[in-house]
Amino acid sequence: MNKQTYILIENYMLSCMRDAAHDKEHIYRVLYNALQIAQAESDVDYDVLITACLLHDIGRDEQFKNPKFDHAEVGGDKAYKFLTDNGFSSEFAEHVKSCIVTHRFRKIRPPESVEAKILFDADKLDVTGAMGVARTLMYKSGVGEPLYSIGEDGMPSNGEGDTSPSFFQEYNFKLKNLYDKFYTERGWLLAAERKSAAKEFYGSLYAEVESAYKNGKRLLSKFMD
Amino acid sequence: MNKQTYILIENYMLSCMRDAAHDKEHIYRVLYNALQIAQAESDVDYDVLITACLLHDIGRDEQFKNPKFDHAEVGGDKAYKFLTDNGFSSEFAEHVKSCIVTHRFRKIRPPESVEAKILFDADKLDVTGAMGVARTLMYKSGVGEPLYSIGEDGMPSNGEGDTSPSFFQEYNFKLKNLYDKFYTERGWLLAAERKSAAKEFYGSLYAEVESAYKNGKRLLSKFMD
Repeated sequence: MNKQTYILIENYMLSCMRDAAHDKEHIYRVLYNALQIAQAESDVDYDVLITACLLHDIGRDEQFKNPKFDHAEVGGDKAYKFLTDNGFSSEFAEHVKSCIVTHRFRKIRPPESVEAKILFDADKLDVTGAMGVARTLMYKSGVGEPLYSIGEDGMPSNGEGDTSPSFFQEYNFKLKNLYDKFYTERGWLLAAERKSAAKEFYGSLYAEVESAYKNGKRLLSKFMD
Repeated sequence: MNKQTYILIENYMLSCMRDAAHDKEHIYRVLYNALQIAQAESDVDYDVLITACLLHDIGRDEQFKNPKFDHAEVGGDKAYKFLTDNGFSSEFAEHVKSCIVTHRFRKIRPPESVEAKILFDADKLDVTGAMGVARTLMYKSGVGEPLYSIGEDGMPSNGEGDTSPSFFQEYNFKLKNLYDKFYTERGWLLAAERKSAAKEFYGSLYAEVESAYKNGKRLLSKFMD
Protein backbone atom coordinates (compact mmCIF):
# COMPACT_ATOMS: atom_id res chain seq x y z
CA MET A 1 0.00 0.00 0.00
CA ASN A 2 1.37 3.41 -0.77
CA LYS A 3 1.29 6.22 1.79
CA GLN A 4 -1.22 8.23 -0.25
CA THR A 5 -3.72 5.34 -0.29
CA TYR A 6 -3.25 4.83 3.46
CA ILE A 7 -3.99 8.51 4.11
CA LEU A 8 -7.07 8.41 1.87
CA ILE A 9 -8.51 5.48 3.84
CA GLU A 10 -7.40 6.91 7.21
CA ASN A 11 -9.10 10.23 6.46
CA TYR A 12 -12.34 8.49 5.56
CA MET A 13 -12.14 6.57 8.86
CA LEU A 14 -11.53 9.81 10.80
CA SER A 15 -14.53 11.45 9.12
CA CYS A 16 -16.75 8.62 10.41
CA MET A 17 -15.58 8.65 14.07
CA ARG A 18 -17.65 10.13 16.89
CA ASP A 19 -18.16 7.65 19.71
CA ALA A 20 -15.49 8.35 22.36
CA ALA A 21 -15.46 4.74 23.69
CA HIS A 22 -14.50 3.53 20.25
CA ASP A 23 -12.38 6.52 19.35
CA LYS A 24 -9.64 6.67 16.79
CA GLU A 25 -6.90 5.47 19.13
CA HIS A 26 -8.82 2.18 19.37
CA ILE A 27 -8.60 1.95 15.57
CA TYR A 28 -4.83 2.43 15.61
CA ARG A 29 -4.41 -0.10 18.44
CA VAL A 30 -6.42 -2.66 16.45
CA LEU A 31 -4.30 -1.96 13.35
CA TYR A 32 -1.07 -2.31 15.34
CA ASN A 33 -2.32 -5.46 17.11
CA ALA A 34 -3.31 -6.92 13.74
CA LEU A 35 0.11 -6.32 12.22
CA GLN A 36 1.75 -8.12 15.15
CA ILE A 37 -0.66 -11.06 14.93
CA ALA A 38 -0.16 -11.25 11.15
CA GLN A 39 3.57 -11.87 11.61
CA ALA A 40 2.80 -15.41 12.75
CA GLU A 41 0.38 -16.16 9.87
CA SER A 42 1.07 -17.13 6.25
CA ASP A 43 -0.21 -15.61 3.00
CA VAL A 44 -1.68 -12.48 4.57
CA ASP A 45 -2.92 -9.81 2.16
CA TYR A 46 -1.66 -6.77 4.07
CA ASP A 47 -3.53 -4.27 1.88
CA VAL A 48 -6.82 -5.96 2.76
CA LEU A 49 -5.83 -6.29 6.43
CA ILE A 50 -4.72 -2.66 6.86
CA THR A 51 -7.82 -1.36 5.07
CA ALA A 52 -10.19 -3.58 7.06
CA CYS A 53 -8.57 -2.53 10.36
CA LEU A 54 -8.82 1.17 9.55
CA LEU A 55 -12.46 0.87 8.48
CA HIS A 56 -13.80 -1.80 10.87
CA ASP A 57 -15.75 0.60 13.12
CA ILE A 58 -17.01 3.17 10.59
CA GLY A 59 -20.57 1.94 11.20
CA ARG A 60 -20.45 2.74 14.96
CA ASP A 61 -22.19 6.07 14.71
CA GLU A 62 -25.18 4.55 12.88
CA GLN A 63 -25.53 1.84 15.57
CA PHE A 64 -25.13 4.46 18.31
CA LYS A 65 -27.96 6.54 16.85
CA ASN A 66 -30.15 3.51 16.21
CA PRO A 67 -29.27 0.29 18.09
CA LYS A 68 -31.27 -1.70 15.53
CA PHE A 69 -28.35 -1.24 13.14
CA ASP A 70 -25.41 -3.64 13.42
CA HIS A 71 -22.24 -1.56 13.10
CA ALA A 72 -20.40 -4.49 11.49
CA GLU A 73 -22.96 -4.77 8.69
CA VAL A 74 -23.32 -1.01 8.21
CA GLY A 75 -19.52 -0.64 8.28
CA GLY A 76 -19.07 -3.39 5.69
CA ASP A 77 -21.50 -1.71 3.31
CA LYS A 78 -19.97 1.75 3.84
CA ALA A 79 -16.46 0.38 3.27
CA TYR A 80 -17.51 -1.40 0.06
CA LYS A 81 -19.07 1.78 -1.32
CA PHE A 82 -16.13 3.98 -0.30
CA LEU A 83 -13.58 1.61 -1.83
CA THR A 84 -15.35 1.03 -5.14
CA ASP A 85 -16.11 4.77 -5.41
CA ASN A 86 -12.38 5.38 -5.03
CA GLY A 87 -11.15 3.05 -7.72
CA PHE A 88 -10.45 -0.13 -5.73
CA SER A 89 -11.56 -3.37 -7.41
CA SER A 90 -14.87 -4.92 -6.37
CA GLU A 91 -12.94 -8.08 -5.40
CA PHE A 92 -10.74 -6.09 -2.99
CA ALA A 93 -13.74 -4.18 -1.62
CA GLU A 94 -15.68 -7.41 -1.11
CA HIS A 95 -12.78 -9.00 0.81
CA VAL A 96 -12.47 -5.94 3.08
CA LYS A 97 -16.24 -5.90 3.58
CA SER A 98 -16.33 -9.54 4.63
CA CYS A 99 -13.61 -8.91 7.25
CA ILE A 100 -15.58 -5.98 8.68
CA VAL A 101 -18.92 -7.85 8.69
CA THR A 102 -17.46 -10.76 10.68
CA HIS A 103 -15.35 -8.76 13.16
CA ARG A 104 -18.23 -8.58 15.62
CA PHE A 105 -18.96 -11.84 17.39
CA ARG A 106 -22.02 -13.58 15.95
CA LYS A 107 -22.32 -17.37 15.92
CA ILE A 108 -23.91 -17.31 12.47
CA ARG A 109 -21.04 -15.49 10.80
CA PRO A 110 -17.56 -16.49 11.97
CA PRO A 111 -14.55 -14.85 10.29
CA GLU A 112 -13.32 -16.97 7.38
CA SER A 113 -10.29 -15.51 5.63
CA VAL A 114 -7.00 -15.18 7.48
CA GLU A 115 -7.37 -11.38 7.32
CA ALA A 116 -10.86 -11.61 8.86
CA LYS A 117 -9.55 -13.83 11.67
CA ILE A 118 -6.68 -11.43 12.37
CA LEU A 119 -9.01 -8.41 12.51
CA PHE A 120 -11.38 -10.28 14.83
CA ASP A 121 -8.55 -11.18 17.20
CA ALA A 122 -6.93 -7.74 17.06
CA ASP A 123 -10.24 -6.09 17.97
CA LYS A 124 -10.88 -8.59 20.77
CA LEU A 125 -7.36 -8.06 22.12
CA ASP A 126 -8.36 -4.45 22.87
CA VAL A 127 -10.95 -5.77 25.37
CA THR A 128 -8.37 -7.87 27.25
CA GLY A 129 -6.03 -6.88 30.06
CA ALA A 130 -5.84 -3.41 31.57
CA MET A 131 -7.12 -1.88 28.32
CA GLY A 132 -10.25 -4.03 28.47
CA VAL A 133 -10.87 -2.89 32.03
CA ALA A 134 -10.31 0.79 31.15
CA ARG A 135 -12.55 0.71 28.08
CA THR A 136 -15.29 -1.19 29.90
CA LEU A 137 -15.29 1.29 32.80
CA MET A 138 -15.44 4.23 30.41
CA TYR A 139 -18.26 2.65 28.43
CA LYS A 140 -20.23 1.64 31.55
CA SER A 141 -19.97 5.15 32.91
CA GLY A 142 -21.26 6.61 29.64
CA VAL A 143 -24.43 4.51 29.78
CA GLY A 144 -24.91 5.19 33.50
CA GLU A 145 -24.12 1.69 34.79
CA PRO A 146 -22.55 1.31 38.26
CA LEU A 147 -19.36 -0.44 39.35
CA TYR A 148 -21.32 -3.01 41.35
CA SER A 149 -24.81 -3.92 42.44
CA ILE A 150 -25.93 -4.14 46.04
CA GLY A 151 -27.40 -7.52 46.97
CA GLU A 152 -30.37 -8.23 49.19
CA ASP A 153 -27.98 -8.54 52.15
CA GLY A 154 -26.90 -4.91 51.59
CA MET A 155 -23.44 -6.03 50.51
CA PRO A 156 -21.80 -5.36 47.12
CA SER A 157 -22.18 -8.33 44.78
CA ASN A 158 -19.01 -9.65 43.14
CA GLY A 159 -20.96 -9.80 39.86
CA GLU A 160 -21.25 -13.59 39.54
CA GLY A 161 -24.84 -14.50 38.80
CA ASP A 162 -25.98 -10.87 38.71
CA THR A 163 -28.88 -10.00 36.45
CA SER A 164 -28.47 -6.22 36.53
CA PRO A 165 -25.62 -4.64 34.59
CA SER A 166 -22.49 -3.37 36.33
CA PHE A 167 -18.72 -3.48 35.85
CA PHE A 168 -18.43 -6.54 38.13
CA GLN A 169 -21.16 -8.32 36.15
CA GLU A 170 -19.44 -7.51 32.85
CA TYR A 171 -16.13 -8.80 34.18
CA ASN A 172 -17.68 -12.12 35.20
CA PHE A 173 -19.92 -12.62 32.18
CA LYS A 174 -17.65 -11.28 29.47
CA LEU A 175 -14.17 -9.96 30.23
CA LYS A 176 -12.81 -12.96 32.11
CA ASN A 177 -14.06 -15.44 29.50
CA LEU A 178 -12.54 -13.85 26.41
CA TYR A 179 -9.16 -15.47 26.59
CA ASP A 180 -9.95 -18.79 24.89
CA LYS A 181 -11.94 -17.20 22.07
CA PHE A 182 -9.17 -16.30 19.66
CA TYR A 183 -8.79 -17.64 16.12
CA THR A 184 -5.03 -17.11 15.81
CA GLU A 185 -2.25 -18.46 17.99
CA ARG A 186 -0.48 -15.10 18.25
CA GLY A 187 -3.74 -13.37 19.20
CA TRP A 188 -4.32 -15.98 21.90
CA LEU A 189 -0.76 -15.55 23.17
CA LEU A 190 -0.91 -11.74 23.32
CA ALA A 191 -4.24 -11.98 25.18
CA ALA A 192 -2.82 -14.53 27.64
CA GLU A 193 0.02 -12.13 28.50
CA ARG A 194 -2.54 -9.50 29.49
CA LYS A 195 -4.93 -11.68 31.42
CA SER A 196 -3.47 -11.21 34.90
CA ALA A 197 -3.68 -7.39 34.72
CA ALA A 198 -7.49 -7.56 34.36
CA LYS A 199 -7.88 -10.31 36.92
CA GLU A 200 -5.77 -8.48 39.50
CA PHE A 201 -7.62 -5.22 38.99
CA TYR A 202 -11.00 -6.88 39.45
CA GLY A 203 -9.71 -8.70 42.53
CA SER A 204 -8.29 -5.53 44.09
CA LEU A 205 -11.40 -3.48 43.42
CA TYR A 206 -13.68 -6.13 44.86
CA ALA A 207 -11.45 -6.54 47.93
CA GLU A 208 -11.44 -2.78 48.56
CA VAL A 209 -15.22 -2.53 48.24
CA GLU A 210 -16.02 -5.67 50.19
CA SER A 211 -13.74 -4.73 53.07
CA ALA A 212 -15.18 -1.20 53.31
CA TYR A 213 -18.81 -2.40 53.41
CA LYS A 214 -18.14 -5.34 55.71
CA ASN A 215 -16.22 -3.41 58.35
CA GLY A 216 -18.24 -0.22 57.89
CA LYS A 217 -21.65 -1.87 58.27
CA ARG A 218 -20.53 -3.72 61.38
CA LEU A 219 -19.22 -0.50 62.95
CA LEU A 220 -22.28 1.53 61.91
CA SER A 221 -24.60 -0.90 63.66
CA LYS A 222 -22.62 -0.29 66.88
CA PHE A 223 -23.48 3.41 66.76
CA MET A 224 -27.19 2.95 66.06
CA ASP A 225 -29.28 3.04 69.22
CA MET B 1 -27.63 8.29 66.74
CA ASN B 2 -30.93 6.50 66.49
CA LYS B 3 -31.99 4.69 63.34
CA GLN B 4 -34.77 7.18 62.62
CA THR B 5 -32.35 10.12 62.65
CA TYR B 6 -29.95 8.19 60.39
CA ILE B 7 -32.75 7.55 57.90
CA LEU B 8 -33.86 11.20 57.98
CA ILE B 9 -30.32 12.36 57.08
CA GLU B 10 -29.79 9.53 54.57
CA ASN B 11 -33.01 10.40 52.75
CA TYR B 12 -32.01 14.04 52.50
CA MET B 13 -28.65 12.94 51.05
CA LEU B 14 -30.39 10.68 48.51
CA SER B 15 -32.69 13.52 47.44
CA CYS B 16 -29.61 15.64 46.61
CA MET B 17 -27.71 13.02 44.53
CA ARG B 18 -27.49 13.16 40.76
CA ASP B 19 -23.90 13.03 39.55
CA ALA B 20 -23.09 9.38 38.70
CA ALA B 21 -19.34 9.75 39.36
CA HIS B 22 -20.11 10.78 42.92
CA ASP B 23 -23.11 8.54 43.30
CA LYS B 24 -24.58 7.28 46.52
CA GLU B 25 -22.31 4.24 46.79
CA HIS B 26 -19.40 6.68 47.08
CA ILE B 27 -21.18 8.23 50.06
CA TYR B 28 -21.56 4.86 51.78
CA ARG B 29 -17.93 3.95 51.07
CA VAL B 30 -16.80 7.25 52.61
CA LEU B 31 -19.00 6.62 55.66
CA TYR B 32 -17.65 3.08 56.04
CA ASN B 33 -14.03 4.22 55.50
CA ALA B 34 -14.56 6.97 58.09
CA LEU B 35 -15.86 4.55 60.71
CA GLN B 36 -12.78 2.36 60.21
CA ILE B 37 -10.41 5.33 60.45
CA ALA B 38 -12.21 6.62 63.55
CA GLN B 39 -11.42 3.39 65.43
CA ALA B 40 -7.82 4.54 65.76
CA GLU B 41 -8.69 8.08 66.93
CA SER B 42 -9.77 9.36 70.37
CA ASP B 43 -12.76 11.46 71.41
CA VAL B 44 -14.62 11.16 68.10
CA ASP B 45 -18.16 12.55 68.02
CA TYR B 46 -19.75 9.78 65.94
CA ASP B 47 -23.03 11.66 65.44
CA VAL B 48 -21.15 14.56 63.85
CA LEU B 49 -18.95 12.19 61.84
CA ILE B 50 -21.80 10.04 60.48
CA THR B 51 -23.86 13.11 59.61
CA ALA B 52 -20.94 14.87 57.91
CA CYS B 53 -20.10 11.74 55.88
CA LEU B 54 -23.68 11.29 54.69
CA LEU B 55 -24.00 14.96 53.71
CA HIS B 56 -20.48 15.78 52.45
CA ASP B 57 -21.34 15.80 48.73
CA ILE B 58 -24.86 17.29 48.77
CA GLY B 59 -23.52 20.40 47.01
CA ARG B 60 -22.23 18.41 44.00
CA ASP B 61 -25.21 19.08 41.78
CA GLU B 62 -24.90 22.86 42.23
CA GLN B 63 -21.19 22.73 41.29
CA PHE B 64 -21.97 20.46 38.34
CA LYS B 65 -24.53 22.94 37.00
CA ASN B 66 -22.30 25.94 37.67
CA PRO B 67 -18.57 25.24 38.19
CA LYS B 68 -18.21 28.63 39.92
CA PHE B 69 -19.84 27.07 42.96
CA ASP B 70 -17.64 25.10 45.35
CA HIS B 71 -19.56 21.95 46.32
CA ALA B 72 -17.90 21.90 49.76
CA GLU B 73 -19.14 25.40 50.59
CA VAL B 74 -22.59 24.88 49.07
CA GLY B 75 -22.85 21.51 50.84
CA GLY B 76 -21.86 23.01 54.19
CA ASP B 77 -24.56 25.68 53.90
CA LYS B 78 -27.21 23.17 52.78
CA ALA B 79 -26.33 20.81 55.63
CA TYR B 80 -26.50 23.62 58.22
CA LYS B 81 -29.94 24.67 57.00
CA PHE B 82 -31.27 21.10 56.79
CA LEU B 83 -30.03 20.24 60.28
CA THR B 84 -31.29 23.39 62.04
CA ASP B 85 -34.62 23.12 60.16
CA ASN B 86 -34.90 19.58 61.56
CA GLY B 87 -34.33 20.38 65.21
CA PHE B 88 -30.57 19.77 65.55
CA SER B 89 -28.70 22.37 67.65
CA SER B 90 -26.87 25.16 65.86
CA GLU B 91 -23.65 23.96 67.54
CA PHE B 92 -24.07 20.46 66.05
CA ALA B 93 -25.00 21.88 62.64
CA GLU B 94 -22.00 24.23 62.71
CA HIS B 95 -19.62 21.35 63.50
CA VAL B 96 -21.03 19.22 60.66
CA LYS B 97 -20.83 22.21 58.32
CA SER B 98 -17.16 22.84 59.12
CA CYS B 99 -16.32 19.18 58.34
CA ILE B 100 -18.08 19.43 54.98
CA VAL B 101 -16.50 22.78 54.06
CA THR B 102 -12.96 21.47 54.66
CA HIS B 103 -13.37 18.02 53.06
CA ARG B 104 -12.24 19.33 49.69
CA PHE B 105 -8.53 20.06 49.47
CA ARG B 106 -7.82 23.78 49.70
CA LYS B 107 -4.61 25.12 51.24
CA ILE B 108 -6.45 27.97 52.92
CA ARG B 109 -8.89 25.75 54.81
CA PRO B 110 -7.41 22.55 56.21
CA PRO B 111 -9.67 20.28 58.26
CA GLU B 112 -9.36 21.11 61.98
CA SER B 113 -11.52 18.89 64.20
CA VAL B 114 -10.82 15.17 64.40
CA GLU B 115 -14.15 14.50 62.65
CA ALA B 116 -13.16 16.87 59.80
CA LYS B 117 -9.80 15.13 59.41
CA ILE B 118 -11.45 11.71 59.33
CA LEU B 119 -13.98 12.80 56.67
CA PHE B 120 -11.18 14.33 54.59
CA ASP B 121 -9.15 11.10 54.73
CA ALA B 122 -12.15 8.82 54.15
CA ASP B 123 -13.09 10.80 51.04
CA LYS B 124 -9.49 10.80 49.77
CA LEU B 125 -9.23 7.06 50.38
CA ASP B 126 -11.92 6.57 47.73
CA VAL B 127 -9.49 8.05 45.13
CA THR B 128 -6.70 5.60 46.03
CA GLY B 129 -6.06 2.07 44.76
CA ALA B 130 -8.25 0.29 42.22
CA MET B 131 -11.25 2.40 43.25
CA GLY B 132 -9.35 5.61 42.47
CA VAL B 133 -8.47 4.23 39.04
CA ALA B 134 -12.06 3.14 38.34
CA ARG B 135 -13.61 6.43 39.45
CA THR B 136 -11.05 8.48 37.53
CA LEU B 137 -11.64 6.50 34.31
CA MET B 138 -15.40 6.88 34.68
CA TYR B 139 -15.09 10.61 35.34
CA LYS B 140 -12.62 11.19 32.49
CA SER B 141 -14.91 9.38 30.09
CA GLY B 142 -17.85 11.54 31.13
CA VAL B 143 -15.99 14.75 30.30
CA GLY B 144 -14.65 13.33 27.04
CA GLU B 145 -11.00 13.04 28.06
CA PRO B 146 -8.84 10.26 26.53
CA LEU B 147 -6.77 7.54 28.18
CA TYR B 148 -3.53 9.04 26.84
CA SER B 149 -2.23 11.78 24.62
CA ILE B 150 -0.16 11.19 21.51
CA GLY B 151 3.20 12.97 21.56
CA GLU B 152 4.95 14.70 18.69
CA ASP B 153 6.75 11.44 17.93
CA GLY B 154 3.39 9.77 17.29
CA MET B 155 3.82 7.61 20.39
CA PRO B 156 1.48 7.53 23.42
CA SER B 157 2.77 9.71 26.24
CA ASN B 158 3.06 8.11 29.68
CA GLY B 159 1.45 11.26 31.13
CA GLU B 160 4.53 12.71 32.89
CA GLY B 161 4.92 16.35 31.94
CA ASP B 162 1.76 16.34 29.80
CA THR B 163 -0.16 19.59 29.55
CA SER B 164 -3.35 18.16 28.02
CA PRO B 165 -5.71 16.15 30.23
CA SER B 166 -5.86 12.36 30.03
CA PHE B 167 -6.00 9.39 32.40
CA PHE B 168 -2.20 8.98 32.25
CA GLN B 169 -1.73 12.67 33.06
CA GLU B 170 -4.14 12.45 36.00
CA TYR B 171 -2.32 9.40 37.32
CA ASN B 172 1.04 11.17 37.25
CA PHE B 173 -0.12 14.55 38.50
CA LYS B 174 -2.67 13.48 41.07
CA LEU B 175 -3.40 9.80 41.74
CA LYS B 176 0.15 8.62 42.42
CA ASN B 177 0.89 11.53 44.77
CA LEU B 178 -2.08 11.16 47.11
CA TYR B 179 -0.58 8.65 49.46
CA ASP B 180 1.36 11.00 51.76
CA LYS B 181 -1.50 13.50 52.09
CA PHE B 182 -3.50 11.95 54.88
CA TYR B 183 -4.19 13.54 58.26
CA THR B 184 -4.80 10.34 60.22
CA GLU B 185 -2.50 7.38 60.68
CA ARG B 186 -5.23 4.82 59.91
CA GLY B 187 -6.20 6.72 56.76
CA TRP B 188 -2.58 6.74 55.64
CA LEU B 189 -2.27 3.02 56.38
CA LEU B 190 -5.44 2.03 54.50
CA ALA B 191 -4.26 4.11 51.53
CA ALA B 192 -0.80 2.53 51.61
CA GLU B 193 -2.38 -0.94 51.39
CA ARG B 194 -4.13 0.07 48.17
CA LYS B 195 -1.26 1.87 46.48
CA SER B 196 0.16 -1.06 44.51
CA ALA B 197 -3.18 -1.86 42.81
CA ALA B 198 -3.25 1.59 41.18
CA LYS B 199 0.44 1.55 40.32
CA GLU B 200 0.24 -1.89 38.72
CA PHE B 201 -2.83 -1.00 36.69
CA TYR B 202 -1.18 2.15 35.33
CA GLY B 203 1.99 0.19 34.55
CA SER B 204 0.09 -2.59 32.76
CA LEU B 205 -2.02 -0.20 30.73
CA TYR B 206 0.99 1.83 29.66
CA ALA B 207 2.95 -1.32 28.76
CA GLU B 208 0.06 -2.66 26.64
CA VAL B 209 -0.34 0.63 24.80
CA GLU B 210 3.36 1.34 24.33
CA SER B 211 4.06 -2.15 23.01
CA ALA B 212 1.17 -2.01 20.52
CA TYR B 213 2.23 1.36 19.09
CA LYS B 214 5.95 0.59 19.04
CA ASN B 215 5.67 -2.76 17.27
CA GLY B 216 2.71 -1.71 15.14
CA LYS B 217 4.29 1.47 13.80
CA ARG B 218 7.50 -0.35 12.93
CA LEU B 219 5.57 -3.05 11.06
CA LEU B 220 3.28 -0.54 9.33
CA SER B 221 6.27 1.33 7.89
CA LYS B 222 7.44 -1.97 6.30
CA PHE B 223 4.20 -2.20 4.31
CA MET B 224 4.20 1.39 3.06
CA ASP B 225 5.79 1.77 -0.38
